[in-house]
Amino acid sequence: MDKRMRTSEDELLAAIRKVLSGAGPEVVVGPGDDAAVLAAASGEQVLTADVLVEGVHFDLSLTSARDLGYKAITVNVSDLAAMAASPRAALVTLVLPPSVEESWVMELFGGMREACDEYALWLVGGDLSSGSKISVSVTATGEVAPGRAVLRSGARVGDVVVVTGELGASAAGLRLAREGRAPSSDTDRALLRAHFRPVARVGEAGVLARHGATAMMDISDGLALDLSRMCRASRVGVTLRSVDIPVADGASFADALSGGEDYELLVTLPHVVAFEAVKVELRETFGAAVTAIGTIEAEGLKIQDMSGSLAPLAPEGWDHFGGR
Amino acid sequence: MDKRMRTSEDELLAAIRKVLSGAGPEVVVGPGDDAAVLAAASGEQVLTADVLVEGVHFDLSLTSARDLGYKAITVNVSDLAAMAASPRAALVTLVLPPSVEESWVMELFGGMREACDEYALWLVGGDLSSGSKISVSVTATGEVAPGRAVLRSGARVGDVVVVTGELGASAAGLRLAREGRAPSSDTDRALLRAHFRPVARVGEAGVLARHGATAMMDISDGLALDLSRMCRASRVGVTLRSVDIPVADGASFADALSGGEDYELLVTLPHVVAFEAVKVELRETFGAAVTAIGTIEAEGLKIQDMSGSLAPLAPEGWDHFGGR
Repeated sequence: MDKRMRTSEDELLAAIRKVLSGAGPEVVVGPGDDAAVLAAASGEQVLTADVLVEGVHFDLSLTSARDLGYKAITVNVSDLAAMAASPRAALVTLVLPPSVEESWVMELFGGMREACDEYALWLVGGDLSSGSKISVSVTATGEVAPGRAVLRSGARVGDVVVVTGELGASAAGLRLAREGRAPSSDTDRALLRAHFRPVARVGEAGVLARHGATAMMDISDGLALDLSRMCRASRVGVTLRSVDIPVADGASFADALSGGEDYELLVTLPHVVAFEAVKVELRETFGAAVTAIGTIEAEGLKIQDMSGSLAPLAPEGWDHFGGR
Repeated sequence: MDKRMRTSEDELLAAIRKVLSGAGPEVVVGPGDDAAVLAAASGEQVLTADVLVEGVHFDLSLTSARDLGYKAITVNVSDLAAMAASPRAALVTLVLPPSVEESWVMELFGGMREACDEYALWLVGGDLSSGSKISVSVTATGEVAPGRAVLRSGARVGDVVVVTGELGASAAGLRLAREGRAPSSDTDRALLRAHFRPVARVGEAGVLARHGATAMMDISDGLALDLSRMCRASRVGVTLRSVDIPVADGASFADALSGGEDYELLVTLPHVVAFEAVKVELRETFGAAVTAIGTIEAEGLKIQDMSGSLAPLAPEGWDHFGGR
């Protein structure tokens, strides 16, 4: 039976609305009107947007609609977390080829709803259009106490550079998925999960901010490239210790350095005491690891190998126009 | 000389940032970090999103990059206006084929900036990706005093149905553009302008809300379809008087009834006294027309012709999946 979209836009929107967030105390007007209305925020308003495009960010033969929806929300939540903000609401604009099955669209929104429930976001609206390739554009809003957003421009000379979790798992997971063989171990399953169901470090970001994080961002385009961006924004340099970079089981060092899509936090802390305090609190509260991987310097991007010798750190990672 | 994009994503983003809004008292953190930060809003927060897709909403052989950017912002501002909200900030996610020239992208952002200046919005961030077709997705936020948003669900039996301006000009303008001949009269130029440079009725919406508008929406998909949506949301019917529908010079009655993209306001007012007061104030303040075109009834969607006989109003207009 042909289940492709024979419904009108209004019918599809009505079906989608059923899986969107219901009314809540904060949501004054939900989906269905010209715009959504939220109750006044108590702090500063944080806004971010990310787009996932078929053939660029995802491959329909590898990802399920549910995972894609989940990830589209999570990558935006990760940006909010990287500002030390609490997630609040999301809007979705979706471009769909007419050949897409309605059940696929419902699964996509199901995955979005799942992530919104996980991270306590209201999915309040959006827009829908036909088009030749699927794209999923999400805007998320959050809030932060006035003056408390942690920017990528605050790193200072002498700061300890830290990352949460382990790196490279997403890139290794994508490679595994492309190979097309069934996962044969817990490591394989963890790598696939890292790629298709990333975690946004919202709670961890709050702890890091409370302990005086001077700069923070999420690692979406690879450690080397994102760290070079943080250094440029902060007008500082860095020495990275290769031996200390936490490489995920099953991932390579190259995956960890420039694989991208890990959505771990890259953070600078003012001193080792703050780092030790964060380490204990993250382990006890979230069972999460945090690792010191380098030091902020006055200038230069350098990486120290096991023998102690220094080499330039090439800011390589994901670039949508230059490629890898 | 080949001016297509040979720049990296970071270089392109840096170039775009130059045409984005500068820092202002409300913008705590502008473009360039994981997310933007705005000072706390004084009222309820209003959120809307719209996507424009190449080959669906626009044709590159007909529209300039500058007009497209201007329109992408304006259609979102129109949604905010339709809630009686004041525009505040916008985010843009852009999908671009690698073949697009950088100068085209700069013109697009120039047009967005122009509309943001016009409607006092901050353009605070977004995302960029490659893809096979251009799409421009804009999210806009606004604010409204608590409880003062005007929804499409508030129309009541006996209300006067009114529209701002004249209808059908955008559809007639698009037809003219497709014919490809140079505009030969002021009417032609006005029709083209209506399509490529629509106006969002922000000030007019404020006046209508202040005079007790019970329901309000913008006409983006054609009067007949949008009015049927308003009636469904309000659980009422309507009788439209065809003779009173304000048809723009050079447009047909069909353009006015189901052409779409007019971005005029469709509003219900509680009585004729309110309508007369609005009419005077809109003319004196904005030089803008407002016309009473029908009455809200308990049920049924009907249209009255010149002879006074009633026919069913077919809710026809733009549907992204069903077509026209």
